[in-house]
Amino acid sequence: MNTNPARGMRDFLPDDVRRRQYVMSVIADVYQRYGFEPLETPAVENIETLMGKYGEEGDRLIFRILKRGEEGKTGEADLALRYDLTVPLARVVAEYRERLPKFFKRYQVQPVWRADRPQKGRFREFYQCDVDAIGSTSLVVEAELLGAAAEVLERLGFSAFTIRLNHRKALGGLLEAAGVAVAKHGEALITLDKLDKVGPDGVTAELASRALLAEADAANLVQLFATGGAATNDDVLRRLRTDMKGHEAGLRGVSELEDIVRLSDASRARGRIRLDPSLARGLSYYTGSIFEIAVPDLTGSLGGGGRYDELVGMFLGSQVAACGISLGLERILVVMNARGMFPPVVGATAAQVMVTIWNADTVADAIRLAGELRTAGLRVDVYPDTDKIGKQVKYADSRGIRFVTIVGTDETTRGEVAVKNLSTGEQQLMPRADVATFIRKHG
Amino acid sequence: MNTNPARGMRDFLPDDVRRRQYVMSVIADVYQRYGFEPLETPAVENIETLMGKYGEEGDRLIFRILKRGEEGKTGEADLALRYDLTVPLARVVAEYRERLPKFFKRYQVQPVWRADRPQKGRFREFYQCDVDAIGSTSLVVEAELLGAAAEVLERLGFSAFTIRLNHRKALGGLLEAAGVAVAKHGEALITLDKLDKVGPDGVTAELASRALLAEADAANLVQLFATGGAATNDDVLRRLRTDMKGHEAGLRGVSELEDIVRLSDASRARGRIRLDPSLARGLSYYTGSIFEIAVPDLTGSLGGGGRYDELVGMFLGSQVAACGISLGLERILVVMNARGMFPPVVGATAAQVMVTIWNADTVADAIRLAGELRTAGLRVDVYPDTDKIGKQVKYADSRGIRFVTIVGTDETTRGEVAVKNLSTGEQQLMPRADVATFIRKHG
Repeated sequence: MNTNPARGMRDFLPDDVRRRQYVMSVIADVYQRYGFEPLETPAVENIETLMGKYGEEGDRLIFRILKRGEEGKTGEADLALRYDLTVPLARVVAEYRERLPKFFKRYQVQPVWRADRPQKGRFREFYQCDVDAIGSTSLVVEAELLGAAAEVLERLGFSAFTIRLNHRKALGGLLEAAGVAVAKHGEALITLDKLDKVGPDGVTAELASRALLAEADAANLVQLFATGGAATNDDVLRRLRTDMKGHEAGLRGVSELEDIVRLSDASRARGRIRLDPSLARGLSYYTGSIFEIAVPDLTGSLGGGGRYDELVGMFLGSQVAACGISLGLERILVVMNARGMFPPVVGATAAQVMVTIWNADTVADAIRLAGELRTAGLRVDVYPDTDKIGKQVKYADSRGIRFVTIVGTDETTRGEVAVKNLSTGEQQLMPRADVATFIRKHG
Repeated sequence: MNTNPARGMRDFLPDDVRRRQYVMSVIADVYQRYGFEPLETPAVENIETLMGKYGEEGDRLIFRILKRGEEGKTGEADLALRYDLTVPLARVVAEYRERLPKFFKRYQVQPVWRADRPQKGRFREFYQCDVDAIGSTSLVVEAELLGAAAEVLERLGFSAFTIRLNHRKALGGLLEAAGVAVAKHGEALITLDKLDKVGPDGVTAELASRALLAEADAANLVQLFATGGAATNDDVLRRLRTDMKGHEAGLRGVSELEDIVRLSDASRARGRIRLDPSLARGLSYYTGSIFEIAVPDLTGSLGGGGRYDELVGMFLGSQVAACGISLGLERILVVMNARGMFPPVVGATAAQVMVTIWNADTVADAIRLAGELRTAGLRVDVYPDTDKIGKQVKYADSRGIRFVTIVGTDETTRGEVAVKNLSTGEQQLMPRADVATFIRKHG
C-alpha cells in the first residue's frame, strides 16, 4: 500500500515540528508585543467566497471539495480549501464588523493549499504567517507592520535583509505620466518585469515595439526601474517627483512613500527600507503601499504585502481600510535550515531522562519514579519492556537521552536510585529525592 | 455576499483562539513531560489512504477533493481531508519505520474534517489531540497514556472525571462464553448499547427475541453490563473471571485489565480507573484495552482510545503494536467555557498599554516610544490616527487596555511621559525610561 503523503504535501517528523513551532512562536510573540491578536478561520470555505478574488490563475489553483452524498455524484463542488489568509480575513471583518474593534489588528498562522505544480521548495500545503491592521488609512499602520516584520526576522537571526517599498498609486502615476494608457499598465508591467532576463535595452525595445511607449520615454522608465532599488531613498523620491510630471494621484503616492520611510525610521525597520519603483507585486487587490522582504543570495522574497483598502468592501459593500504583510514560513525555514540558524535547544530530543525497568516486579515503581521526576518538571521517558538493562540503556543513548535511572533490588531497599550520565558514562547513587535536582544541574 | 463560514465550520476570534491555545499548550506541555514528541501530517491525504479504514459510515463522511484541471471535469476525487489522526499516524509509521525510534511516542494536535450533519456542539472541522505509543505490547504503555491524559485534565482543572476501562478480548470472550456466536457480536453489542434507553428488562427481552442468547444468559450478561461501572474493580474482575467460563483469550484480556489497573495506580490515573464491561467503543480497529473518559453531568466523553495492534499492519504488511488516547478539544472547551474554568489571564486583551499620538508632528516619536516599551517586554498598541486625545483614550478603555501614554509638547521638552491608568483614572508624569517598569509594576 502507498504510504507516501499526497503529492506536494509533507509529513513533519518531530525535529521538523520543533523547528516549525520555534519559528511560529517567535512570530506570535513579536506580533503580540505589537498589539496584534490571533485569529483562526476554517481550512474549508464556501467556494463563492474564494472564486474571483485571486485572478484567473488563482481560481485554477484552488482545491475544490465535492458535494456530499447523492449531490456529489454530479461532480459539483460547493466548498474549497483556503488559498490565502487575506480573503478569509476580509470575510471575517465583514461578518463580525460590530463585534470587532474599530482598529482590528490580527495575526494568523495557518496552512493554505494551492494546486501548483510541486517543485523544489514549492508545496501544495504550506503555512502563511499574516499580520494585518484593519480600519485605518494612517501610515502609522505601515510603519508598525514593517517594524514588526523586521523585528521577527531579527529575532530569528536574519541580519542582512532589506524591505523593498513601492506604492501602487506612484507606480500607476509613473506609467501614466510616461504615456502608458491605463488599460495597458498590466502589459507594461509584465514587460518591465523581464529586466533581469533581457536587460534594459531588451525591455526598452519591447516596450517600444509593443507600442506601449515612445522609445525615449521607455528608456527613461527602464532606467528608473533598473537603478531604483540601488539609489538612495532621497534620490528615488526626487526622481519620482520629476518623472510624475504633475500627475496628482501619483504625487500623493510619492508623498506617502516619503512618510512611510520617515515613520519607519522610528521603528525596528530603520535603515532597512529601499524605495524600489520597479516593485509591482502580483495580486490585484493592492491599492497603496506595497512591500517585499529581500535577503541577499536568495531569489524570491521572505514575505511581502501592502495596502488593500477595497477588498473588505467586496464582502461588506462599504470600504474598510486594510494593510498587511505576510511572511513565508516555508522559505524562512529553508533558509534557517540551510544556514544553521536554529538555537541548539530547538533540535533537542523530547526526554531529559529515561527510567529503566529492572524486572517484572518493579514496573509499577518505575512508573511512580517517572511521575515524581515529571512533577519536578522534567521530561521523562519510561522504557516499556523488561529487556536487559544494557539494551534499555543502549536505546536511551540511541535516542540522545542524556540520563537513565536504574533501580535494582539493592537500590529499592535503600531508597536510592542509580543515575547514569550517558555522555560521560559516569554512574552515581543518590537518594531518590535528589534525582531531579541532579539531572537539572548536570543536564 | 454571504460572509458566513462554511456550514459546520467556525471562525475563531481572538478570545476564542487564546482559550484554544491555552488548552493546547497545557496538552503539549504534559505530553512532552511524558516523553512524547510532536508529529504533524497534511490535512489532505490520498483518498485510498483513508477509504475503508473507518467502516461504511466513516467512508460516507469523508470530504473528497476533486481532481484538478481537465481531470476534475469527470467529477472524480483523488484526495480527501484527514478524518482522524490515527490512520495518518499508521501511514507515517509504515513510511518512516527505519527513521523512527523503536518505541515511537508521538502527540498530534490538528484539525480533522467530517461531513457529519452539524448540530449543537458537533462541527465539521474540529481539533483532535492524540497521543500514541508505537512499538510495544507492554501494559506500561497503557498506564503511561492514562496517567498522561489524567494529568492533562487535572492541569486544566477537571477534578471529578473517571476513566472507564475495558478490553476487546475480555468483551469478546464474555459474549462467546454467554453463547453469542462471534458473527453476532456486533448485533449483540448494538442491542446491549440500548441499556440506558430501554432498561435491563427491555434489552434482555430483545437479546432473547433476536435469538442472540438464551433468556437466562441474556439476563446475566445484562446485569453485568448494567452494574459493571458501579461495582469495585476487584468485584468486576472476579465476576468477569467467573462469567468467562474458562474462555482463554477472554481470561488473558481480564489479566491485562488487572495489570493495567495495578500499574495505573502508580500513575496520575490513580483512583480514576473504573472497569466497565459494557464499554465497547465504536471503531473496529481496537484489539486490546479500550478506554473512555467520563465527566459527571456530561453525556458523551472527553476522550477515549485503546490498543490497535493491527492497524499499522494494514499499511506496512507486518504488525506493529500501537496504543493511543484521543482527547476531544472541542468538548473540553465547551465544558471549560460553561464552567468558567479558564485562568483570568487567558481572556486578557493583547495590549498592556496604548501609546497615543499628540499631533501630526509627534507620530514618529509615538512609534519610537512604542518600540522602547516593546523592547522592555511589554505588549504595546499604538493608536494610528491623530484623533483628539480624549477619543484615543476612550478607545483604549473600550479595548480593555489598562494604560495609555500621553506625550504632549511640554512632556517632549522635559523628556517625560504622562501615564494614565484607565482603571483608576490616575495620571502620572515620569521620565521616559521609567514607563515600562511602572506599567509592569502596576499592571
